Amino acid sequence: MAPEKLLELLSELQQGKTTTEDVVARLAHLPYEDLDFAKIDHHRPLRTGMPEVIYGAGKTDAQVLEIFARMAAAGGNVLATRVSPTAAEAVRQKFPGAVHHAIARTLALRQEKREPRPGTLAILCAGTSDLPVAEEAAVTAELMGNTIARVYDVGVAGLHRLLAQREVLTQARALIVCAGMEGALPTVVAGLVRAPVIAVPTSVGYGASFGGIAALLGMLNSCAPNVAVVNIDNGFGAACFATSILAAREA
Amino acid sequence: MAPEKLLELLSELQQGKTTTEDVVARLAHLPYEDLDFAKIDHHRPLRTGMPEVIYGAGKTDAQVLEIFARMAAAGGNVLATRVSPTAAEAVRQKFPGAVHHAIARTLALRQEKREPRPGTLAILCAGTSDLPVAEEAAVTAELMGNTIARVYDVGVAGLHRLLAQREVLTQARALIVCAGMEGALPTVVAGLVRAPVIAVPTSVGYGASFGGIAALLGMLNSCAPNVAVVNIDNGFGAACFATSILAAREA
Amino acid sequence: MAPEKLLELLSELQQGKTTTEDVVARLAHLPYEDLDFAKIDHHRPLRTGMPEVIYGAGKTDAQVLEIFARMAAAGGNVLATRVSPTAAEAVRQKFPGAVHHAIARTLALRQEKREPRPGTLAILCAGTSDLPVAEEAAVTAELMGNTIARVYDVGVAGLHRLLAQREVLTQARALIVCAGMEGALPTVVAGLVRAPVIAVPTSVGYGASFGGIAALLGMLNSCAPNVAVVNIDNGFGAACFATSILAAREA
Amino acid sequence: MAPEKLLELLSELQQGKTTTEDVVARLAHLPYEDLDFAKIDHHRPLRTGMPEVIYGAGKTDAQVLEIFARMAAAGGNVLATRVSPTAAEAVRQKFPGAVHHAIARTLALRQEKREPRPGTLAILCAGTSDLPVAEEAAVTAELMGNTIARVYDVGVAGLHRLLAQREVLTQARALIVCAGMEGALPTVVAGLVRAPVIAVPTSVGYGASFGGIAALLGMLNSCAPNVAVVNIDNGFGAACFATSILAAREA
Amino acid sequence: MAPEKLLELLSELQQGKTTTEDVVARLAHLPYEDLDFAKIDHHRPLRTGMPEVIYGAGKTDAQVLEIFARMAAAGGNVLATRVSPTAAEAVRQKFPGAVHHAIARTLALRQEKREPRPGTLAILCAGTSDLPVAEEAAVTAELMGNTIARVYDVGVAGLHRLLAQREVLTQARALIVCAGMEGALPTVVAGLVRAPVIAVPTSVGYGASFGGIAALLGMLNSCAPNVAVVNIDNGFGAACFATSILAAREA
Amino acid sequence: MAPEKLLELLSELQQGKTTTEDVVARLAHLPYEDLDFAKIDHHRPLRTGMPEVIYGAGKTDAQVLEIFARMAAAGGNVLATRVSPTAAEAVRQKFPGAVHHAIARTLALRQEKREPRPGTLAILCAGTSDLPVAEEAAVTAELMGNTIARVYDVGVAGLHRLLAQREVLTQARALIVCAGMEGALPTVVAGLVRAPVIAVPTSVGYGASFGGIAALLGMLNSCAPNVAVVNIDNGFGAACFATSILAAREA
Amino acid sequence: MAPEKLLELLSELQQGKTTTEDVVARLAHLPYEDLDFAKIDHHRPLRTGMPEVIYGAGKTDAQVLEIFARMAAAGGNVLATRVSPTAAEAVRQKFPGAVHHAIARTLALRQEKREPRPGTLAILCAGTSDLPVAEEAAVTAELMGNTIARVYDVGVAGLHRLLAQREVLTQARALIVCAGMEGALPTVVAGLVRAPVIAVPTSVGYGASFGGIAALLGMLNSCAPNVAVVNIDNGFGAACFATSILAAREA
Amino acid sequence: MAPEKLLELLSELQQGKTTTEDVVARLAHLPYEDLDFAKIDHHRPLRTGMPEVIYGAGKTDAQVLEIFARMAAAGGNVLATRVSPTAAEAVRQKFPGAVHHAIARTLALRQEKREPRPGTLAILCAGTSDLPVAEEAAVTAELMGNTIARVYDVGVAGLHRLLAQREVLTQARALIVCAGMEGALPTVVAGLVRAPVIAVPTSVGYGASFGGIAALLGMLNSCAPNVAVVNIDNGFGAACFATSILAAREA
Repeated sequence: MAPEKLLELLSELQQGKTTTEDVVARLAHLPYEDLDFAKIDHHRPLRTGMPEVIYGAGKTDAQVLEIFARMAAAGGNVLATRVSPTAAEAVRQKFPGAVHHAIARTLALRQEKREPRPGTLAILCAGTSDLPVAEEAAVTAELMGNTIARVYDVGVAGLHRLLAQREVLTQARALIVCAGMEGALPTVVAGLVRAPVIAVPTSVGYGASFGGIAALLGMLNSCAPNVAVVNIDNGFGAACFATSILAAREA
Repeated sequence: MAPEKLLELLSELQQGKTTTEDVVARLAHLPYEDLDFAKIDHHRPLRTGMPEVIYGAGKTDAQVLEIFARMAAAGGNVLATRVSPTAAEAVRQKFPGAVHHAIARTLALRQEKREPRPGTLAILCAGTSDLPVAEEAAVTAELMGNTIARVYDVGVAGLHRLLAQREVLTQARALIVCAGMEGALPTVVAGLVRAPVIAVPTSVGYGASFGGIAALLGMLNSCAPNVAVVNIDNGFGAACFATSILAAREA
Repeated sequence: MAPEKLLELLSELQQGKTTTEDVVARLAHLPYEDLDFAKIDHHRPLRTGMPEVIYGAGKTDAQVLEIFARMAAAGGNVLATRVSPTAAEAVRQKFPGAVHHAIARTLALRQEKREPRPGTLAILCAGTSDLPVAEEAAVTAELMGNTIARVYDVGVAGLHRLLAQREVLTQARALIVCAGMEGALPTVVAGLVRAPVIAVPTSVGYGASFGGIAALLGMLNSCAPNVAVVNIDNGFGAACFATSILAAREA
Repeated sequence: MAPEKLLELLSELQQGKTTTEDVVARLAHLPYEDLDFAKIDHHRPLRTGMPEVIYGAGKTDAQVLEIFARMAAAGGNVLATRVSPTAAEAVRQKFPGAVHHAIARTLALRQEKREPRPGTLAILCAGTSDLPVAEEAAVTAELMGNTIARVYDVGVAGLHRLLAQREVLTQARALIVCAGMEGALPTVVAGLVRAPVIAVPTSVGYGASFGGIAALLGMLNSCAPNVAVVNIDNGFGAACFATSILAAREA
Repeated sequence: MAPEKLLELLSELQQGKTTTEDVVARLAHLPYEDLDFAKIDHHRPLRTGMPEVIYGAGKTDAQVLEIFARMAAAGGNVLATRVSPTAAEAVRQKFPGAVHHAIARTLALRQEKREPRPGTLAILCAGTSDLPVAEEAAVTAELMGNTIARVYDVGVAGLHRLLAQREVLTQARALIVCAGMEGALPTVVAGLVRAPVIAVPTSVGYGASFGGIAALLGMLNSCAPNVAVVNIDNGFGAACFATSILAAREA
Repeated sequence: MAPEKLLELLSELQQGKTTTEDVVARLAHLPYEDLDFAKIDHHRPLRTGMPEVIYGAGKTDAQVLEIFARMAAAGGNVLATRVSPTAAEAVRQKFPGAVHHAIARTLALRQEKREPRPGTLAILCAGTSDLPVAEEAAVTAELMGNTIARVYDVGVAGLHRLLAQREVLTQARALIVCAGMEGALPTVVAGLVRAPVIAVPTSVGYGASFGGIAALLGMLNSCAPNVAVVNIDNGFGAACFATSILAAREA
Repeated sequence: MAPEKLLELLSELQQGKTTTEDVVARLAHLPYEDLDFAKIDHHRPLRTGMPEVIYGAGKTDAQVLEIFARMAAAGGNVLATRVSPTAAEAVRQKFPGAVHHAIARTLALRQEKREPRPGTLAILCAGTSDLPVAEEAAVTAELMGNTIARVYDVGVAGLHRLLAQREVLTQARALIVCAGMEGALPTVVAGLVRAPVIAVPTSVGYGASFGGIAALLGMLNSCAPNVAVVNIDNGFGAACFATSILAAREA
Repeated sequence: MAPEKLLELLSELQQGKTTTEDVVARLAHLPYEDLDFAKIDHHRPLRTGMPEVIYGAGKTDAQVLEIFARMAAAGGNVLATRVSPTAAEAVRQKFPGAVHHAIARTLALRQEKREPRPGTLAILCAGTSDLPVAEEAAVTAELMGNTIARVYDVGVAGLHRLLAQREVLTQARALIVCAGMEGALPTVVAGLVRAPVIAVPTSVGYGASFGGIAALLGMLNSCAPNVAVVNIDNGFGAACFATSILAAREA
């Protein structure tokens, strides 16, 4: 609850327009909606600038649909990640405007029109197998109002493919770099640019990649200092974090 | 080497002002200085906006001193991290203006004057034992031209201490949050602000903290989406990454 | 075997009412029932105050049914956890009174009536995906005679949802707190209450959550001192442990 | 801040006895003391029933002394754990009444007199090498007002030593069981009693004990349901948790 | 090749009964049979006293059948472990005398009659879910000529069930003890007997049992000195190792 | 781009045969083909002597087919590894000349005829279950122009099978040794030969083999100094590395 | 307590020679000696055939001395392992007959004379650095009445050194094989003999040996079936286990 | 023993020039020297082309000296690695010609003169802290007759430093690449050359570098196929492996 909101509330109390009991109650009950099995935090966009998003994994199709419907009713954009094809189908029957990106495993309903904010967010990936993660990041970031430049399949064992894209990289205001296996791409990229590089380890690989641990450790130990890391396969989180950077320019 | 630089070089060639051999040589030799055991990358500040920094751990006092001297001769600010007291002493005998922060284990020589850039960078830590990491971040960030707000000893088991600082948090343009043990502080902070939160796990703890692994995993799995993570105890990297965010606002 | 039981037995021997061979035999054979592939410990309720419970995972439907039937014949409440839908169906055909909770994956037959013991046990979870674990705890604890207060979907990235339930938390005599991902909820809760907090890491998450390890480590390293931890996804164990606390008040 | 406190504060506001600005300020500033490098949470005892305790590891002697002095000035009992001999000496010069337990590595100043609460807390350990952890638990629990029964060196490879203490075990209202190596003792004990068993893995062992991991995993996987676990070597936390159980009986 | 065999061969050479080329060839070609994808070591029984055994996992049904047929043709007992039901069916169509133990996942063809060797081998398991491992050990050991005493479902949380079997335990000449979860049973058993205890961790459990790692570590760290450990779920290896102990008595 | 190529390009510029813009463009755009979801590096064979290869895992059948077709059009040999049977079928419908090795999971199209280079590459494996990895290595190495000697099923527990093949081993110019479980075979082999031994851990095993980690660690810790290691199950990489050794002899 | 002992005790009761109270007391109090910080299990030799041994690590010199003295007073052989030089010195001043083996870090007092039992126990190690572990095993086994054959520095990278000792190996009734690094020696040895092989991983190595984990995993995954494993560096345990095997032949 | 050697030996036997006993003895006793605590394998150079080398870690100064002396007496070059300064001093007093490289921690005595073999071995490292490992490789490789090109401090975050050395890299016949932290350098290098790249992870780094694990995993997962890996910090092994490659060209 914003300080000004609190001052206003207390002024009403002071002026006798409300009771102490009422203030206590309102202090405690910030706006969220209780679905019994979930509490939708409609207040979050105000507080953090990020929409609450449906994480589809581990939820039944019916749960995904119900939460999606409630959020859609609130009028903002709605995003679900890690949605199964059947859940996507179920939602799209009720919300034909919702767009399902099969590779990114996302379902997006755009209800708000806004100008994309200035500055590009470059999204890179090392190989074709990293596409689902890179696209989850791209779809999320686009819905949050960013302009995206995709630079895919530029792994470090063929440097010239990467160097050919140098101009795109140096002009980006933030970069999301997805890579599995040894996860070296974010470090090499970060050595070429001034902007912050958000590294996303992917679970691509086999054997001693250990489902993304090798890439994760590689990125955490980057010898380039303008690198920070999110969870394995967390394209969504990378997009949110990038948005928090780019949006800050607006403030 | 920036594209315009290359175009200019090639024009000279076209105009007969230089030879092909010379161009090949200059293409290959971007400016770095070879100390035999180290190659100082004087070009890095131009390329990435970050000074090259001396990582003191695993270097002899003599090596630290020699690299420090070469960098100082280049005229910019010089920073050494993880310096031992004896290395610090050795450097300060030759560079009395170098400042040694014992808790942060840093040695800083400020040779450039510049206005601090607008916007504050908040640096938080969960407990007193996290101070060396938080201070490494603070000293680094200050030398790189940022304004710092320190918020220390605000662990999540006593939420009111954190909530009392809410105004400082919400006004920061970026936040660095250091925590060991369970590493929950960045998540709780990120739920209160819109700005990006850079999480720094520290090796504070014992037993199943495994030298910071517990905190690292906690931060990577944060349920707040505006969190990214750097290596355990990497206060320096967090400061560089934060600078890459704040500096972007200037561009 | 309780000391008084032994004294009585030895008295009978002393009085010639029994033989030494018989005593040796009875000392060795405390009451359990041998099903060849399992030994049912009917004596456990007397010894530990906890019913023996059928752990359904890794047992065939026929094995579950046979053990369930033997336990039911003993007259007490019967509980099976981690039961598959087919095993549940098989049992319910023979015991229509057995209740199957699909989300909790439990099967419960209540044959004993008793007053719920005084004091509430609060059961919290961080997100919707933690429900199976929280409900396993709730079903188990209810069958063992406790009064439950459910507080679900109150993750730490939206503190106001948790703080709104503060009254419920502070009045509970013990709390079970289930969370996956970074597992920070038990620590935050424990900072708000005086009662013991039993932390249950869940396998909810992906990537560096490592099937619950991140949450487990976070809880073991809690900076709040009134927290103890059970195995990943062990809602049943948390309920038993909580019962051992609440039941102690009766003694 | 307790609800009644808030109602009272708001009443004062309603009656014009205070201003809205003042209420906002007081809402934000619950009682803690700011030492610059540490914030002492004098409010914690009220909120959680546990004294704030000085964790000595990673603090300088001077820091330990300063925090100890501030806490002592507040009039309650003061406890420091993991204190080095030199830190203990430094504090005892100023506070001769502070008791240093060398094996437990604790420093305790008793300034409050209170009746020990009824019911015993049994503290067991498997071998002689577990004594530092068991004694840290014992010293902490005694200072918090509990009556302790020590049962040491009763490892499971010599069951008769444990069974000989059966009476002590069954009469305890809670048990703390410390063990390193394979960590089997808590499970065996929990099979003999009705009360809650708090398992403390210790770092005793070598090779594949991995500094307590083997014992920790053993305890988390206990096949007895009345067992919960704290961090490796965390005798202090076990004592606090046990106190939260025993103290609940008073309420 | 035994030394006497070599001496004999060289004598033949010395006496002109053979050529140097022939000796080199025979030195190199000890008896094994080459199936292209496998080399059957018919010599192993002579060398190590153990039949070569078909490890069924990762082999096609056709491969299992072909190796089984070749071994059967050699006239000794044949054993296949970890066989799928379809592989078992395929073999049994050709070898109706082969016995398939579904729980043990073994397929055994007994072609040699021999007296069981004196002395019993006790095989224990902690719970019903450990049966496949215990039975793999039992079937293997029986085929190798041992007399087995099965003692199942005697976990340490109900000590009386184990103590009731004490006579069987103390009379065994070797013991195989299978347990998952915390894996404490071998340690407790080893404290009651003089004979060697072969501990078999099983993958029974969930969460922090990590597929048997917890049990494995517990057994490796046993505080009882007459315990040695084999791989997780390796009932077959335990039986072979036990046979190497019991057979030694015959020599 | 080779230095001579660059000199030539710059000469053309100097002579007015080209423009600076053109040179910049050509410097940046080395030959690769952009399929939107993949960038085919036709330049790699020139640069590294290795064909770019399609890693089939995680790609759709359509993606495999499209990349395969593009590569085939370039005229060289084409290799795909880890291809599913359906992807192999799809490709073979269009390229009937492509050979599918089911065990090796490879698909190879030979369009270049060349003499096999002199010297043999020995490929060994410890057991039948290691065949897929050994065959992936063999198929790859053959396509790259090497002569292979296969030595299969020669695990260290039956040394005579290995020693019988000693002549093949000592004559090889490089050796690839695949083994799962304890992974000891490369060390034993390396003690018998002068040539480099490339160790390939396989994921064969169960329990504490941890999907090949045990074998990997064993090989990394080899007490023989002429051993280097590639990733678990990476038969393809071992073949490439061996080729880089054998091809060097040609230079 | 042996069954016959119990029958006798109960007969006395039946005949009025003792009271029920006395029987209960004696049942509970099997012979151990309570030193406050340790309970010496004088009964263990009777029960398990192994002397209780002082594990010196983590005990003060004074504690080692006191326990040593108590055990010596009981008249049997006394053994302390992992003793520091100062502890050894302290004990030897009081017990000049105690022998200190510096490499094995043992202290042994032989007070019982007995014939060595028939049959040799072979103790092997792979390299010179494994000597402390091998010698701990040898000293322990000798004190327990076994005849030892030492075969040292026979690592698998030089097979001929091992094969030269083949006769010693095949004649041993049990073998202890110590190895660090890749830990392959026990497997190779087990392929040459019929007797049980007790594998002891040592912490010898660096890097990816991880303090003995690589060797431990290698041994657990041995492809030879007559191998069982004890804890890293546990020469003492290996000797006890071997004794339990060899002593069984006497029964 | 080479086959021709065996044929010759057997001919002598056939011709009556020797006895069967003698042949058996000679077959068994290949040339090694027994120092009681070590068996020096003088035969290894013949068999594997590598001198046996003294691994100094974990050996006493006296042991190092004794083995060094015996090897020197055999007349070839002698190398000791990981030698402490005191051991080096002890050896150099007796062998003044032995050269001690303090950074490489090696001690080398050159007694054989030979022409360096043709072709260079490039040795690279990413940072100054990797020097000890790179120099251990360089000293070892030089003693084994190779020509070295050192390329140090060329980490991937400053690509131009590496690219400036491209000519050296492409002309090398093999490359050893040492890197800690994220370990990306070998992959980038391997993308630029045709020759085999031997990757050496170093323990340089902190936090999530886990003593070299991050670098090790990065290298094992390299997306460049001409990379193989040795143990962490194993500069010696890398040099031996490189020698086995370069020497093969001579055969």
